[in-house]
Amino acid sequence: MSFLHIDSESPFSLDNLPFGVFSTKEKPYIRAGVAVGRHVIDLSALHRHGVFQGRLSDHASVFDSTSLNAFAALGRPFNQSYRLFVRNLLLADNPVLRDNEELRQDAIYDLDKVQMHLPMVIGDYTDFYAGRNHAYNVGVLFRGPENALQPNYLHLPVGYHGRASSVQISGQPVYRPNGQICPGPAPILSPCRKLDMELEIAAFICTPNPQGAPIPIQKASDHIFGFVLMNDWSARDIQAWEYVPLGPFNSKNFATTITPWVVLADAMEPFRVKAPDAPTGLLPYLTQDCNGAYDIDLTVDLRISGETHRLSRSNALHLCFSFEQMIAHHTITGCPLKTGDLFGSGTISGKEKDSLGSLLEMTLNGKEEMRLGSVSRTFLEDHDEVILNGAAGASGARVGFGPCIGRILPAKSL
Amino acid sequence: MSFLHIDSESPFSLDNLPFGVFSTKEKPYIRAGVAVGRHVIDLSALHRHGVFQGRLSDHASVFDSTSLNAFAALGRPFNQSYRLFVRNLLLADNPVLRDNEELRQDAIYDLDKVQMHLPMVIGDYTDFYAGRNHAYNVGVLFRGPENALQPNYLHLPVGYHGRASSVQISGQPVYRPNGQICPGPAPILSPCRKLDMELEIAAFICTPNPQGAPIPIQKASDHIFGFVLMNDWSARDIQAWEYVPLGPFNSKNFATTITPWVVLADAMEPFRVKAPDAPTGLLPYLTQDCNGAYDIDLTVDLRISGETHRLSRSNALHLCFSFEQMIAHHTITGCPLKTGDLFGSGTISGKEKDSLGSLLEMTLNGKEEMRLGSVSRTFLEDHDEVILNGAAGASGARVGFGPCIGRILPAKSL
Ligand SMILES: [Ca+2]
Ligand SMILES: [Ca+2]
Ligand SMILES: [Mg+2]
Ligand SMILES: [Mg+2]
Ligand code: NI
Repeated sequence: MSFLHIDSESPFSLDNLPFGVFSTKEKPYIRAGVAVGRHVIDLSALHRHGVFQGRLSDHASVFDSTSLNAFAALGRPFNQSYRLFVRNLLLADNPVLRDNEELRQDAIYDLDKVQMHLPMVIGDYTDFYAGRNHAYNVGVLFRGPENALQPNYLHLPVGYHGRASSVQISGQPVYRPNGQICPGPAPILSPCRKLDMELEIAAFICTPNPQGAPIPIQKASDHIFGFVLMNDWSARDIQAWEYVPLGPFNSKNFATTITPWVVLADAMEPFRVKAPDAPTGLLPYLTQDCNGAYDIDLTVDLRISGETHRLSRSNALHLCFSFEQMIAHHTITGCPLKTGDLFGSGTISGKEKDSLGSLLEMTLNGKEEMRLGSVSRTFLEDHDEVILNGAAGASGARVGFGPCIGRILPAKSL
Repeated sequence: MSFLHIDSESPFSLDNLPFGVFSTKEKPYIRAGVAVGRHVIDLSALHRHGVFQGRLSDHASVFDSTSLNAFAALGRPFNQSYRLFVRNLLLADNPVLRDNEELRQDAIYDLDKVQMHLPMVIGDYTDFYAGRNHAYNVGVLFRGPENALQPNYLHLPVGYHGRASSVQISGQPVYRPNGQICPGPAPILSPCRKLDMELEIAAFICTPNPQGAPIPIQKASDHIFGFVLMNDWSARDIQAWEYVPLGPFNSKNFATTITPWVVLADAMEPFRVKAPDAPTGLLPYLTQDCNGAYDIDLTVDLRISGETHRLSRSNALHLCFSFEQMIAHHTITGCPLKTGDLFGSGTISGKEKDSLGSLLEMTLNGKEEMRLGSVSRTFLEDHDEVILNGAAGASGARVGFGPCIGRILPAKSL
């Protein structure tokens, strides 16, 4: 129990305490904070007031930074120590923050009064394709059920390099991209006509590895800083025309939205489960002896003219490769990971019609319209707002991300 | 004419003056310099000695930085002003540097005594595929001459997002990557058996564009900082197994080698030519009214046990899309480019057997062995050294990159 009120349905329970960077009207510089209930604890202010002790005090200047990279670079055990310290500080019987009115004034903010910023400087962003049902559904759409999964799919976590510069945070608008599409005999330049979303979770890297030094799968979890929810916006018509033979490019590079609060890997650890669809007989460098998946409930809502429609309810356990497997595969060649690198999971679809992670799957590539109250949709229309949510754990102890929101604005005229 | 000796075959003539970052034994910090002949001019030292004047003095602290990003961010006209200032400083009749012995001691180094470093902090790296002959040759190998070029190829500059973290400079070794390959009925983990090189040039971005704001093709050249030579190392067997449907990933992410000296865009401008193979009838957003290509002679040499074999002589005019077209296409969706982003051209092959830019093409994917003196090769073997060179211009006025060298080291045992 905390001395601060925490709603039992809050994704930011005492068991979570995600880290982010924020600014306020009165203090417009960016610094690090922790979210708890409807509050933000200013870690930079805690440091200024001398609240951190010993080793934790020595390194607490990382919280004055405009990103979490320096904090993440301290490594996962250190990150966890800070999380547990803040947890202790918030307990009902700890007077340090509770009874220091000056410190409370300086270090506690209302969550809805702060301005959040991109939590990490992202060097490289890789998007994987580990949602087996998604890969299968897309394969069926384009190649039929016989050849739905490519021959490599169950042997390695398929992925591609994405565009780091266009990663943005929840709440920032998404302009409908213009691009080259080919609906007829010759290509045209047009605002995207098949604008889609993808429900994903994503991991940030903390400890880097040197070029030429693969990360063995047994050590991979040491390199995971934490998790966010991610919407990998996708222009399906641009993608269809461009992606053979070198993969998605312009169809994915205009925007990718993540939640601003990073749930530390150790906070998510209690929710490990075995992935029911995990492939068997993997090569040793990808063989993981512990549970690789997470039991995280996920939802997709679509807000149209003020009305919210539930499109989907899925779960992260549908990912058939773990982030440890992604790290081991990504680095098996010697590829260096850096602090702040982002790994997207791939779209997370369940097996049922109401558990899909993209409109591509929900509408069979636009062939089946969805009825939503008085309106209908195949792909996203201007002013539509997509809201992802995700949380693990029971009421009163939720470990969640907060909403991942993006609203579509009309394409810029060229 | 300069008061410094410049060999007539030097790629670093007075007409070039490329920028890079370096350190020396006595002064181990990284700072910016300009290459001329077999010398390096220390720009940070020039600034300390008050050599820059006016506006150029105001901004010269960019040269104390460990990368050229701050310099590039000043913008192309400013970059050019500094280049012309240094050129003037080196002229035979200018006493400022020539007659100041203390300044000369401080500001002039031997090129072969300095340690070069990665010139830019690279946020994102995109590799294009604009070498038309290369795309055709690869298409013939895998699909036959009828369908060699994909339907999209002549309508847009095909590209994919690459791995920024693994870009390194000439001289750094390249470990043969381990990876998943599928030579038989089931995949195995193995050191790459088809290790290849790719002859490319690459451009760095100076001025960024905000997310949602495409760069029109008429303005695209304002965003090009300069050029380097690039070897896009490629693991063909890993690539063959992984690349469908999301493109090359592990096959390209272990290393990409560039030259450390950036030839400014304005230094390369005199060598503009019309690309003979440029596609016609492009959409307006890709239509360029000036010459898009560059007449840059390129060579590939392979050094085996101390003996050097010429593998290829090609030219950058075989690129059928320009860097301006790449920029316009990359950003048409609103994708933000940042200072320091790297654009690879794609492999540059001529039409003849002795003008190819990859071993894949030279040996028809390993089917035809190349005889090189007393040895033969299909793909690269351990300890092989690949040496790319490239220069435009006539003897005495060469504008070149210096060598792009990478030596293959045996795969690390796992
Ligand atoms: Ca995705
Ligand atoms: Ca390439
Ligand atoms: Mg994206
Ligand atoms: Mg490469
Ligand atoms: Ni990047």
